[in-house]
Amino acid sequence: MLEKISRVVLLNDFYGPLLTEKQQEILSLHFENDLSLTEIADQMQTSRQAVFDMVKRAEAQLEDFEKKLGMAEKYLLTRRRLGEVVVLLEKPDPRPEDAVEAIKMVHEIMDLL
Amino acid sequence: MLEKISRVVLLNDFYGPLLTEKQQEILSLHFENDLSLTEIADQMQTSRQAVFDMVKRAEAQLEDFEKKLGMAEKYLLTRRRLGEVVVLLEKPDPRPEDAVEAIKMVHEIMDLL
Repeated sequence: MLEKISRVVLLNDFYGPLLTEKQQEILSLHFENDLSLTEIADQMQTSRQAVFDMVKRAEAQLEDFEKKLGMAEKYLLTRRRLGEVVVLLEKPDPRPEDAVEAIKMVHEIMDLL
Repeated sequence: MLEKISRVVLLNDFYGPLLTEKQQEILSLHFENDLSLTEIADQMQTSRQAVFDMVKRAEAQLEDFEKKLGMAEKYLLTRRRLGEVVVLLEKPDPRPEDAVEAIKMVHEIMDLL
């Protein structure tokens, strides 16, 4: 469940601005402010089922944007690769080859972008 | 003119998959295969004006995606910052402070993503 929330929140960080204002509001209330579907329905004077459908529809659209653009996957990969560069640069006894390797890794990351 | 083409091609690299297949085809013929609007119109059995309108509409949509998501701007900035890390790591007489500075820069880049 947590994994699913994290994914929706991550995708929403990237593609949220492409959703409608109402969709953005509902996702924010549900996943950031932790309101239940029923609480959101009460607040919006609609049914729980209507809110449920809107959340599912928004999630599907976010997944569709990710399938087409792949920003979230690229973000996670780029972060991981940059983390590897940091680990290399933080080695206690750096050798000249480490800098060469770090430069190569940074170039590979640039190609990833 | 070249600058404008570069920008459309850059934005299309990021957001092209969000356009319709027809829009993608027209942009590809015009900006990558260098066909004129008239040539595209002939090929598609439509008018030059119709092709012109479709190109303008697609360009406007690409700009709108960039305004909302800012991927192209982030890409250019990230590339530039990574280039600065490479310059630092390639210094002929590296000092320990350079690695510290490089690590700091990489962390800043991770925050940019």
